[in-house]
Amino acid sequence: MKQKQGLLLIISGPSGAGKGTVVQELIAKGGYALSVSATTRSPRPMEQDGVHYFFLTKEAFDQKVAENGFLEHATFCGNQYGTPRAYVEEQLAKGTNVILEIEVQGAFQVKEKFPEAVLLFLVPPSLAELERRLVGRGTEDAETIQKRLGRALEELELMTKYDYLVVNDTVAEAAEDIAAIVRAEQQKCSRQKAFWNEFKGE
Amino acid sequence: MKQKQGLLLIISGPSGAGKGTVVQELIAKGGYALSVSATTRSPRPMEQDGVHYFFLTKEAFDQKVAENGFLEHATFCGNQYGTPRAYVEEQLAKGTNVILEIEVQGAFQVKEKFPEAVLLFLVPPSLAELERRLVGRGTEDAETIQKRLGRALEELELMTKYDYLVVNDTVAEAAEDIAAIVRAEQQKCSRQKAFWNEFKGE
Repeated sequence: MKQKQGLLLIISGPSGAGKGTVVQELIAKGGYALSVSATTRSPRPMEQDGVHYFFLTKEAFDQKVAENGFLEHATFCGNQYGTPRAYVEEQLAKGTNVILEIEVQGAFQVKEKFPEAVLLFLVPPSLAELERRLVGRGTEDAETIQKRLGRALEELELMTKYDYLVVNDTVAEAAEDIAAIVRAEQQKCSRQKAFWNEFKGE
Repeated sequence: MKQKQGLLLIISGPSGAGKGTVVQELIAKGGYALSVSATTRSPRPMEQDGVHYFFLTKEAFDQKVAENGFLEHATFCGNQYGTPRAYVEEQLAKGTNVILEIEVQGAFQVKEKFPEAVLLFLVPPSLAELERRLVGRGTEDAETIQKRLGRALEELELMTKYDYLVVNDTVAEAAEDIAAIVRAEQQKCSRQKAFWNEFKGE
C-alpha cells in the first residue's frame, strides 16, 4: 500500500490547559513533528533559531506572506507570527503527523487553506482546575489570571467550530486520546480514496 | 461528570471481511454490547431465542413495526428481520457502546433515525484476499463466491456514505482501530455539550 499522508493536527486551548506537556508526550510516541513558527520578534536569551522559532526580519516575513508561504499569520503586540507552509507539507508527504500549537483565529485560517486539518481543543477538567493551575505557576498576578480565565471562556464559545474537545485530566490519558483521534481520522472514508482505488484496481 | 452516553456503532462489510471475529474481539475488551436482531424465520437447531435472534411471529413483528419498535427492518427471502430499538437505547443510556452488525441498506435506515450513529465498513486488505478467505471456508461453490465478490464491489461503491473504512488485516489490529474510532468519536465537540455546560456552570 502507498505511504499514507500524515495528518495535520491543530491543538488550541487556554493558557494552563497543558498543551506543551501533552504535545511533548505525543512527540515522544514517535510519528509526530511539531511545526516551528516564524516571527519577527527578537529572540529571547535561550531561544534558538529553527528550534523555538524561525527568526525573520520584517522584510523577509512580508516577502513570505506575499509568496503564500504561511498557512496562517497574525500580528500580536506589533510582532508578526506565522506557520511556514513548506515544512508542514514536507512532513505530511512523508507520512508524519504535524502538530500546530496555535490559537483559535490562526486555527480557523489554517482550516480554510487546509480543510483536511483536524482541529482539537484541549481543556483542563474544569474552570476551577484551570485557575488552580494558573495560580500554581506563580508567574501571573491575580488580575492577569482573571483575564486568562475570561479569555478561556470566550474561546470555549468557539469550540463548536472545532472537531474534538480533549479534557486534559492527566497528560498520559490526554496524549492517548489524541493518538486515538489521529488513528481514527486516518480511517475516515474521506481519507481512504487511495486504498479504495487500489482495492478495486486489483 | 455525568455518565457518557454509549456510542451506536454500525459495522457492515462483505461476507468474508471477518465482521464476526472482530466483533467478538471488541466484546471481549468490555464496554460493548452486541445488538440481537428479531426475525420471523424459524430457529435453526442450535439457535437460542434472545441469544442468536429474538424469534417472533409475523403478527408480533408487524405489531412492533407499527409501534416504531425497530431501528431498521427489512425482508429477505420472505422472512422479516429487524433491530429492536428498546435494547439499543437502554444500553446506550447506561454508557455501553452498542454494535449493530447489519448490511448497508439497514445501516442507512438506522443513520436516518439515529444520526449520531457511527457507520463503519470493514474490508479485507484486498479483493484477492477476500477471495482466498471465501475459498478457504469451503462452504460456498465457485459461482456463489464470484457473486459475493461482485456484491462486495457494489457495496464498496456506497462506502463514501460511511464514516470509517477499517481494513481487517489482522483481527487484533482491526479491533484496536475500532476502539480508537470509538474513543475519538466520544471526544467530538458535537458529543461534548454536557461537559461544556458543566464546565461553564462552575
